[in-house]
Amino acid sequence: MAQQERAIRTRQKIVKAAAELFDEVGYEAATISEVLKKCGVTKGALYFHFSSKEELAQEVLAAQVSALPPVPPTELYLQQTLDEALLLAHLLCLGDPMVRGSIRLTVDQGSPQDGLDRRVPMQGWIDHNTDVLARAKRAGELLPHVDVPSTAILFTSSFTGVQVLSKIMTGHADMVERVTDLMRNLITAIAVPGVLVRLDFAPDRAERVYKEAVRLRDERTAEEAPVTA
Amino acid sequence: MAQQERAIRTRQKIVKAAAELFDEVGYEAATISEVLKKCGVTKGALYFHFSSKEELAQEVLAAQVSALPPVPPTELYLQQTLDEALLLAHLLCLGDPMVRGSIRLTVDQGSPQDGLDRRVPMQGWIDHNTDVLARAKRAGELLPHVDVPSTAILFTSSFTGVQVLSKIMTGHADMVERVTDLMRNLITAIAVPGVLVRLDFAPDRAERVYKEAVRLRDERTAEEAPVTA
Repeated sequence: MAQQERAIRTRQKIVKAAAELFDEVGYEAATISEVLKKCGVTKGALYFHFSSKEELAQEVLAAQVSALPPVPPTELYLQQTLDEALLLAHLLCLGDPMVRGSIRLTVDQGSPQDGLDRRVPMQGWIDHNTDVLARAKRAGELLPHVDVPSTAILFTSSFTGVQVLSKIMTGHADMVERVTDLMRNLITAIAVPGVLVRLDFAPDRAERVYKEAVRLRDERTAEEAPVTA
Repeated sequence: MAQQERAIRTRQKIVKAAAELFDEVGYEAATISEVLKKCGVTKGALYFHFSSKEELAQEVLAAQVSALPPVPPTELYLQQTLDEALLLAHLLCLGDPMVRGSIRLTVDQGSPQDGLDRRVPMQGWIDHNTDVLARAKRAGELLPHVDVPSTAILFTSSFTGVQVLSKIMTGHADMVERVTDLMRNLITAIAVPGVLVRLDFAPDRAERVYKEAVRLRDERTAEEAPVTA
């Protein structure tokens, strides 16, 4: 394994362990020594990549949007938005540590002194939703009155709330059902009827999207891997 | 002032100071001695009412739904639901310590060991919304397909998310605008058209509801007060 590749893997290992710990105990209670125990990396190696717990947390926050594999291509942009919400719900339900750790860091208010910029992942989701909804609008999928920027904020915020409540009430067990409910109501308010009838809201959609997204990601990773390791 | 009344006021003072502190620093970092400093009550008096920080936090959580003054009576149940959401948004925007402290306690995940039951306020909101939406359904305000229990959960969760995002992005400054947006979309998906056109979504609705609710509460308090204090 090339030296550069080894460094990337070590870095990923550290970030994953940190996300897991942030999910378990929150930012304040987490310590670098607990991260070290979890990932089995030396202190020197960790400090080569990250100078502080804050920097580590900011990396976990920054990776929130990009940690998700892209959903399989669809004909309708609103189906893409729906599939992305279902995929994230499914990953939370499965207990994916990167997703859960990063989301907990975002939602916990923390202390004003902790210096974490929780706007980074939120703005990331808002920008992403703005992009997909703008495409939906140009493709004629949205009703004429729909304002794309405020709808993008609404999709981001209401998903966040469904996540918080589902975590409190069921430990994320009902996430997929609750997100399907949310999306059904929001999309009803913004989509033209001809699009509404073509959307797939089936109960097993989340799992299908997840499997296909993982398959596509693994294919891509295999393609990108060097011939000799 | 009668002894019993004095005890009630002391208790309220302690709970309010605790809520304020929970809003500022969160549950983990809050201490009983900081609560004492804030409310100027003796240690003995505090421990007469509350045996631990946990008990104090649980009281703040339990008071979340009841801390809100009732909204003025309206003709439509969906207007009541909308007004309640706008009132809560306005109070968060004003920085009401009871509401903010209690909501932070609910949303911060905390540690599994902290023993706080965050389901209490959430279940309170779900029950309340179920009640109002069931009345709306019986009054013919909702479309026939609408499922009251899951819609009550959806109203509760999506409001929570709007609150979290508005806090992160603007320190609650855009709460009223964001909640209006949310309610406009959710209600569009569930109300019959004849009700939709009668709902008041005006930008100054939140402030009007707040002023009227406070006036009504003060009137009621004055009526209930004993003639001699």
